[in-house]
Amino acid sequence: MRKICIIVNSRANYGRIKTVLQALKNDSNVQLQIIVGASAVLERFGNVSKIISNDGFKIDSMLYSVVEGENPTTMAKSTGLAIIELSTIFENLKPDVVLTVADRYETLATAIASSYMNIPLAHTQGGEVTGSIDESVRHAITKLAHLHFPATKLSEQNLLKLGEDPSTIYMTGCPAMDIVASQDLTLEDDFFVKYKGVGPNLDPHKPYLVVLQHPVTTEYGQGFNQIKETIKAVQEINIQTVWLWPNIDAGSDEVSKGIRIFRERENPSNIHFYKNFSPEDYIKLIGNCICQVGNSSSALREGSFLGVPVVNIGTRQNNRECAENVIHVDHNFQNIKNAINYQIKHSKYESSKIFGDGDSGKKIAKILAKAEFKIQKKLHFLN
Amino acid sequence: MRKICIIVNSRANYGRIKTVLQALKNDSNVQLQIIVGASAVLERFGNVSKIISNDGFKIDSMLYSVVEGENPTTMAKSTGLAIIELSTIFENLKPDVVLTVADRYETLATAIASSYMNIPLAHTQGGEVTGSIDESVRHAITKLAHLHFPATKLSEQNLLKLGEDPSTIYMTGCPAMDIVASQDLTLEDDFFVKYKGVGPNLDPHKPYLVVLQHPVTTEYGQGFNQIKETIKAVQEINIQTVWLWPNIDAGSDEVSKGIRIFRERENPSNIHFYKNFSPEDYIKLIGNCICQVGNSSSALREGSFLGVPVVNIGTRQNNRECAENVIHVDHNFQNIKNAINYQIKHSKYESSKIFGDGDSGKKIAKILAKAEFKIQKKLHFLN
Amino acid sequence: MRKICIIVNSRANYGRIKTVLQALKNDSNVQLQIIVGASAVLERFGNVSKIISNDGFKIDSMLYSVVEGENPTTMAKSTGLAIIELSTIFENLKPDVVLTVADRYETLATAIASSYMNIPLAHTQGGEVTGSIDESVRHAITKLAHLHFPATKLSEQNLLKLGEDPSTIYMTGCPAMDIVASQDLTLEDDFFVKYKGVGPNLDPHKPYLVVLQHPVTTEYGQGFNQIKETIKAVQEINIQTVWLWPNIDAGSDEVSKGIRIFRERENPSNIHFYKNFSPEDYIKLIGNCICQVGNSSSALREGSFLGVPVVNIGTRQNNRECAENVIHVDHNFQNIKNAINYQIKHSKYESSKIFGDGDSGKKIAKILAKAEFKIQKKLHFLN
Amino acid sequence: MRKICIIVNSRANYGRIKTVLQALKNDSNVQLQIIVGASAVLERFGNVSKIISNDGFKIDSMLYSVVEGENPTTMAKSTGLAIIELSTIFENLKPDVVLTVADRYETLATAIASSYMNIPLAHTQGGEVTGSIDESVRHAITKLAHLHFPATKLSEQNLLKLGEDPSTIYMTGCPAMDIVASQDLTLEDDFFVKYKGVGPNLDPHKPYLVVLQHPVTTEYGQGFNQIKETIKAVQEINIQTVWLWPNIDAGSDEVSKGIRIFRERENPSNIHFYKNFSPEDYIKLIGNCICQVGNSSSALREGSFLGVPVVNIGTRQNNRECAENVIHVDHNFQNIKNAINYQIKHSKYESSKIFGDGDSGKKIAKILAKAEFKIQKKLHFLN
Repeated sequence: MRKICIIVNSRANYGRIKTVLQALKNDSNVQLQIIVGASAVLERFGNVSKIISNDGFKIDSMLYSVVEGENPTTMAKSTGLAIIELSTIFENLKPDVVLTVADRYETLATAIASSYMNIPLAHTQGGEVTGSIDESVRHAITKLAHLHFPATKLSEQNLLKLGEDPSTIYMTGCPAMDIVASQDLTLEDDFFVKYKGVGPNLDPHKPYLVVLQHPVTTEYGQGFNQIKETIKAVQEINIQTVWLWPNIDAGSDEVSKGIRIFRERENPSNIHFYKNFSPEDYIKLIGNCICQVGNSSSALREGSFLGVPVVNIGTRQNNRECAENVIHVDHNFQNIKNAINYQIKHSKYESSKIFGDGDSGKKIAKILAKAEFKIQKKLHFLN
Repeated sequence: MRKICIIVNSRANYGRIKTVLQALKNDSNVQLQIIVGASAVLERFGNVSKIISNDGFKIDSMLYSVVEGENPTTMAKSTGLAIIELSTIFENLKPDVVLTVADRYETLATAIASSYMNIPLAHTQGGEVTGSIDESVRHAITKLAHLHFPATKLSEQNLLKLGEDPSTIYMTGCPAMDIVASQDLTLEDDFFVKYKGVGPNLDPHKPYLVVLQHPVTTEYGQGFNQIKETIKAVQEINIQTVWLWPNIDAGSDEVSKGIRIFRERENPSNIHFYKNFSPEDYIKLIGNCICQVGNSSSALREGSFLGVPVVNIGTRQNNRECAENVIHVDHNFQNIKNAINYQIKHSKYESSKIFGDGDSGKKIAKILAKAEFKIQKKLHFLN
Repeated sequence: MRKICIIVNSRANYGRIKTVLQALKNDSNVQLQIIVGASAVLERFGNVSKIISNDGFKIDSMLYSVVEGENPTTMAKSTGLAIIELSTIFENLKPDVVLTVADRYETLATAIASSYMNIPLAHTQGGEVTGSIDESVRHAITKLAHLHFPATKLSEQNLLKLGEDPSTIYMTGCPAMDIVASQDLTLEDDFFVKYKGVGPNLDPHKPYLVVLQHPVTTEYGQGFNQIKETIKAVQEINIQTVWLWPNIDAGSDEVSKGIRIFRERENPSNIHFYKNFSPEDYIKLIGNCICQVGNSSSALREGSFLGVPVVNIGTRQNNRECAENVIHVDHNFQNIKNAINYQIKHSKYESSKIFGDGDSGKKIAKILAKAEFKIQKKLHFLN
Repeated sequence: MRKICIIVNSRANYGRIKTVLQALKNDSNVQLQIIVGASAVLERFGNVSKIISNDGFKIDSMLYSVVEGENPTTMAKSTGLAIIELSTIFENLKPDVVLTVADRYETLATAIASSYMNIPLAHTQGGEVTGSIDESVRHAITKLAHLHFPATKLSEQNLLKLGEDPSTIYMTGCPAMDIVASQDLTLEDDFFVKYKGVGPNLDPHKPYLVVLQHPVTTEYGQGFNQIKETIKAVQEINIQTVWLWPNIDAGSDEVSKGIRIFRERENPSNIHFYKNFSPEDYIKLIGNCICQVGNSSSALREGSFLGVPVVNIGTRQNNRECAENVIHVDHNFQNIKNAINYQIKHSKYESSKIFGDGDSGKKIAKILAKAEFKIQKKLHFLN
């Protein structure tokens, strides 16, 4: 029985692989192994491992690999520690294939541990183009991977151009769209209440903004000034707002500090701060907002399917493929404010299927269960 | 003053970067930082750090990162530990640019630590094609690097195809050729004596073979059987032979075990075993042999310039660019023996300059001293 | 010139070694090396490294060693990572003697790294008796240390009984008392305002409680229920209260969670939550409170000199030497409440000098600068 | 069913715990968990894990924790890495009690990982007195351990003096004596042949010396000169000799280098070098020699039961309890030679039972299976 091992490292990771987990769990010819690590096991980031367990999945191994500090040095160290830990876990679980999601440092650690251990590596979200260190890391992982599940046609083209063997590339779309496609978007009355967080009560039946702005690792040191512009814009718009704390990347402290100082000084009456939503509720959250602001990839990916009006700020999503729902602005509060106002006026966009049409999870699971692997990779340039 | 940091991790590493170190040391506008790690600090592998010091270089930091075991798991762990260590060292040395050589796990560790720490990364030997896990790792490092010094035109083409920015690629040739080009190849009478080793006395003035066969990480578990074929062939050829111990890759134990069992059982009268030669003496060694046997890249690279008759065995150098001096055979003792006999009969080949014409070190040093870096990478496909 | 290296790992650490740092800094025959690590470099714990820099000290090396998770497994892992990091730092700084403070896991990591590296180890707070894993760790460190600076006569006796060489033991008192002794306790009007924190404004000129309750590692899993009792008691007392977040030990999450749930549910009008105070302000803080509640050693140590009325809860300080100012209670809200009320009624106690009389820092510095070390330890039982 | 986890880290470790493993394996009320790590998994040190498997034990986890370098820095780093690895393994195996043997850095790593994870720790060989860093480490482990199995009455007394709770101390003797007591000492004709090694053939029926001299970590840097004296003495004695390579401690390289240089220069006709013997064959080996030379604890421990004439050199066994069979000398070749000649003339000594009378393994196993533990330790001074 083929042992398929999937590593989940953050809240975003989970939403983008959940339907694959479900499909594999239901396949009696496959043994699903789930490893949860990095920020997905930390209370401070909402402990995604509990959501995974509550969803009925058995976690085979938990991984503590985050070296605290949230700066460039600790990002490197966390990558190193994750490799050390994952190699021990792989030795115990002896998977036949490992799947790693996207482009974060835990994703890279997974790729390196499995590569050196001669375990075939599958990868989702390869071939996409963005800013931040994730851009380089994503393509580096592609060069280590034996099986690719790009989310878009353009990404598929990029993988081919990068010299990957065409027979190892399957354009399946992104499993996150499966959740989006099947999700009832109705917001319950207690939608916001059940997630606690800090701030004034929000009314799910009135218009609201969603803000999620992560640090940009390659612009480390500028996060504090960057977030101030966004804060100022959102404050002046003065509509009720769901603000999500940034991820664990280098510079997270800077961004969080900016938010915290603002919160203490201004005690903003329109903003409520949250750590985390379940993948399904996150879809509802952004699916019903009048505008999503920041630099989260979810705005461009899930947002395109949902037709969410998006204001994307700064370079983090530079050159990422996107639909018509996105306006790009720089870190300037007036530009941000104008763009938000434009998007509020515009209201919802038409749904786009560029990132998948809703059955990616099953497709990926099916291929993972059957694929044959050549452990020795070779360049396959088309021209 | 620009701080340029170069990491040396093995005997092969050193020979392929030494003339760069020399040129940077002589540049008064540059502060050269040298880190020595991995097998290059270990007695068991001939402690290359002593050779480096004896050559007049100041070592800024020594790095102990090899987790013993020489299997796939410890290769992964060593990569992780090296990242943890290098991030601390980089924090202390605060280099403006880091240069990493080739494609080994310490090379990858260097690339990851510097990438996450937003330190521009320069890379030599990118774009080459081989077998083993080095193949994947080399291209992964390319995707993390900000400045490329490919050794051949074909490699340069590969880097362009891989989407690297043309303005960051400098085809300089390989610095190892600088040593080759300037090296007086005369063997002193005490050439072999001074390196000790184990085995019968060798006469530098009589014909001899050189054998260097490393494990192939992606064929872990087959090393013992693979080396047996080579041993049998060399034994039957029965010419005096310099045999170098394999490197530290996963599977090294298998190969060494094969050698050791053979040595104890057969007490071969024609083979002398050595750990290490200085870069210059290594050139003399292979430059004067009647045939180099095994799977070392030096046979194809340095060997091409020297016109050494080479028998390359197995997949480790699969598809690597090479000159006319190389015959490829599989792990079959009769084929190996026939090929060696053919090469002995053929004698020296004409010198080829595909890997450089002898002034790569100065070229690289000059560019390193001046280059400007964009820390945020982007794909640059030509078509 | 003797190089004396001191490692500071937490806010408590710093207060208990600061006057030693000052004395060594002023000694021109000594080169002071300061390493700051663990929670003392983390924003989440108030980044003590900034306070240290602001106090005019040069930090030689920063150490990121905390593996996030705050559970027993990550405490072990953090110890391991700290050893790996410290050995590299020691190799760079090449200290002649290392001083480590108290009994935490970073303290143990320091002791192990220096011991195996044959660097003489000095230790403060040895010989004291408490609960928690700190109890075992403190005595283990004693067995590795070459020079002991116990804070009390009883501790000195314990060190002798433990078989330490009498010529290596100097009963100097605790340097924390130096700050206490020389501190003007007047609270400025803006005393509380400048530390921000979360909660209602506090009036420094009205009576207030201080609460600081850490997790007990050997009772991991009970922290949530334990803190609830304290919360309930403090809430019913209903006097304005300074509540400090717990340290980073295993179980910290449990305690913090209890506090957070309470805060969100009850929105307590009398409690303000803080991360950190400078060593001097911390002395003022507890020196002026009408009762200190929890299980911090500062209540028993600094508190004894200041005569602070203390309610010590649970086993964390089990059997620790203390003066008359302390009442011990178990984790029962009624008992805690009664004890607080008793202490409020009692008001200040007489000052006790059992933990030092105010010039420990200079004494320790003087000995450190001159002591001779035998690197090979031996048992010295008195009987 | 109680899960009892035992960690084996070297050839010496295994011989001193093997009969405990056997007794626990035969107890159907107990689940035995075996972890093998450090030098016991390395080919270079004879891969003791294979001997363990061949003896019929199931190994639950293998641990690669040795950072290569064999110097003080890598000893520290190896300790750190072992803690990181062991905490993951303990999390998977969830033992009810962990037993650690003696006083090496892997022993300390085990003690720290289990202590912080609140897993009760049992310890053998506590309370003994020696030189080297092992001396400090052994007592530090005692302060972390919850159950003690000292080997001698004097050691038991030392544990009591060190403040350990009398109810946690069981003077069982050393399990190594069980093997000694039951061992048929007859040497088969092929005794030496089957272990290969390097050197001239030895005749098991003629008198022979055994030499085993480890580095002394606290005298790092002196190993080369120390071993030269021993070599010179043994060479002049000129009786056939079994020489065992030193262990993996800091300084091992120095000692090995001394041996290797001597071997190459002198090509000694009377000395054969070996890596390893099984525990049983090791007993035969020293039980039949006419003198054991060096600084191995086996000479004093197993040697006392066997009545082996011993020449103990230097400080490594300083103050270790021993029987009449031992002569102590310093690192002076003339003194060593004289002492060896004296011991050869003296021939066998009477058997001493100070280290146990042959049934320690069963005693320890029985107590481990039943003991109750208080996880919170306290000092218990007798006076």
